[in-house]
Amino acid sequence: MNLTFLGTSSGAPTRQRNVSALAIQPEHGRDWVLVDCGEATQHQLLRTRLSPLKLRAVLITHVHGDHCYGLPGLLASCQLNGRTEPLTLVGPRAVWDYLQAVIRHTEMRIEYPLEFVEASASLALTRGGFNIGATALSHRTECWAYRLQEARVPVKLDTARLASEGVPPSPLYGRLQQGESVTLADGRQLNGQDYWIAAHVARAVVVGGDNDQPDRLTEACRGTQLLIHEATYTETVLQQVGPGPQHSSAERVARFAEAAGVPALLLTHFSPRYLLYPKRPRDLSVEALRQEAQAHYTGQVYLAEDFETYALGRDGRVTLGTG
Amino acid sequence: MNLTFLGTSSGAPTRQRNVSALAIQPEHGRDWVLVDCGEATQHQLLRTRLSPLKLRAVLITHVHGDHCYGLPGLLASCQLNGRTEPLTLVGPRAVWDYLQAVIRHTEMRIEYPLEFVEASASLALTRGGFNIGATALSHRTECWAYRLQEARVPVKLDTARLASEGVPPSPLYGRLQQGESVTLADGRQLNGQDYWIAAHVARAVVVGGDNDQPDRLTEACRGTQLLIHEATYTETVLQQVGPGPQHSSAERVARFAEAAGVPALLLTHFSPRYLLYPKRPRDLSVEALRQEAQAHYTGQVYLAEDFETYALGRDGRVTLGTG
Repeated sequence: MNLTFLGTSSGAPTRQRNVSALAIQPEHGRDWVLVDCGEATQHQLLRTRLSPLKLRAVLITHVHGDHCYGLPGLLASCQLNGRTEPLTLVGPRAVWDYLQAVIRHTEMRIEYPLEFVEASASLALTRGGFNIGATALSHRTECWAYRLQEARVPVKLDTARLASEGVPPSPLYGRLQQGESVTLADGRQLNGQDYWIAAHVARAVVVGGDNDQPDRLTEACRGTQLLIHEATYTETVLQQVGPGPQHSSAERVARFAEAAGVPALLLTHFSPRYLLYPKRPRDLSVEALRQEAQAHYTGQVYLAEDFETYALGRDGRVTLGTG
Repeated sequence: MNLTFLGTSSGAPTRQRNVSALAIQPEHGRDWVLVDCGEATQHQLLRTRLSPLKLRAVLITHVHGDHCYGLPGLLASCQLNGRTEPLTLVGPRAVWDYLQAVIRHTEMRIEYPLEFVEASASLALTRGGFNIGATALSHRTECWAYRLQEARVPVKLDTARLASEGVPPSPLYGRLQQGESVTLADGRQLNGQDYWIAAHVARAVVVGGDNDQPDRLTEACRGTQLLIHEATYTETVLQQVGPGPQHSSAERVARFAEAAGVPALLLTHFSPRYLLYPKRPRDLSVEALRQEAQAHYTGQVYLAEDFETYALGRDGRVTLGTG
């Protein structure tokens, strides 16, 4: 399961970071799902191996421009590039209304099936190899987090159980693994599928939108290996800015992740004031966000950068790879 | 007078070319005017010295996405970056309706004055150091070309006339140049301003939108030094594609420019099928467009690339510089 960041800036793009977009791929195949689609997401995709024609669903957290202004262009380019397969759009109703207005006003033509599913607490959708759910967040406008859990986990034979039932390893194991029924020498009949167990835990991630109440995600984070959440400011800067924008500080997210027992935390959606490569002593560095998060959280902390790909392994561990 | 191409692809961005946008600056000062604003124009600007806060007007040729999907993001980022000065938007009414719909649906906030001027044949506007007019084109939707002529041409003293009137060069010339009234040794009184003439011709360019009838621009091209026009295909490809998209071939634009006597022709808005750096023999090169244009036009032909800056000198000559 791979997560590729296409944009990690809040509000406006910088030379180093584009506005929000995150591509999530299951372990096998070329299908993928996109969470948020800030302006120029299609441009970022040109620099990756992700194919817009293999995009199965776009999940939009909320209707603010830095999370959805890339949607019309991406969908239009899919049309120009000959897409015929259906695409599912998930988000608040306002996102659909926005897209429909753009389509109508700009004579945009989409001939492939475009399905809209309104985000809700009862969302239960399977697309691109993921079971997808949603949790309402707290922001200036209706905003959702999405939980993506891999839909298909390979099975393996429960050899421990077979051994405990007096069935020692033999070529029969291969047939049982295939789900066949076999007859043992002692006359017992076994159905292989009865001895199937999941080869590993079904991996799950929660991807938050803009949100000033991380604890809204307590339930969603159960059984997930990774929380991806905005950390727009440090707590000090958040206090200076005031509560109006309804964003989170690194500290608040870290405290929540610690309390929820999430093993890994990936921060993104950084204010443009935080620079990747500070030049002057008075420049703010994203490292300030990392240090703040680490001070309040004992799990793994990552700060996303554009074009980074994180792998969530079968063992539930997060590693930073290369796209 | 400088022209910087921020996008030169038609329809969709490629790795080499963004969709349409062209920045035009007068010779002095940091003000500028933008013609068309495809998606990610604000991202392209981050790679230039052009300041969005010094942008005085955005002229949109037509409402198709590859010419205007960057508008909401650019205007939103101006707000985030503290713009307070007014901005003028010119285009078909549909562009204003599109923008208003996006603003409304996405809770976008613009607090600086945003003025809309509907494009029309009687458009006569001065912004960013240019007198701006418009000419209706022929496309699938309402589409306009814009003519930008420098509004302020410096004056110089008509020394030939002074000499012919028996006023030889002397320190008086300096005072006349300043527009002062002076009394000559023979008692004649001269007003300097009566001897002012333009230091050079007022430079003018015509920037077309999408258009399959270049000769619509005959009148607009009078007295211009440069025509910037789409050449989406070669004539052969245009014949294969058919007339539906209502674009021009390099040949058609070149024939028109030759007939109109325009001294220089700058082609842009190339179909993504034309590659800047072809790798295989069967790849189409933009050079095919250049050769086709040169076969039908005796003036200077240029093919625009992203981030190229062309200078239109006081002598009316076009040169390719660096932005």
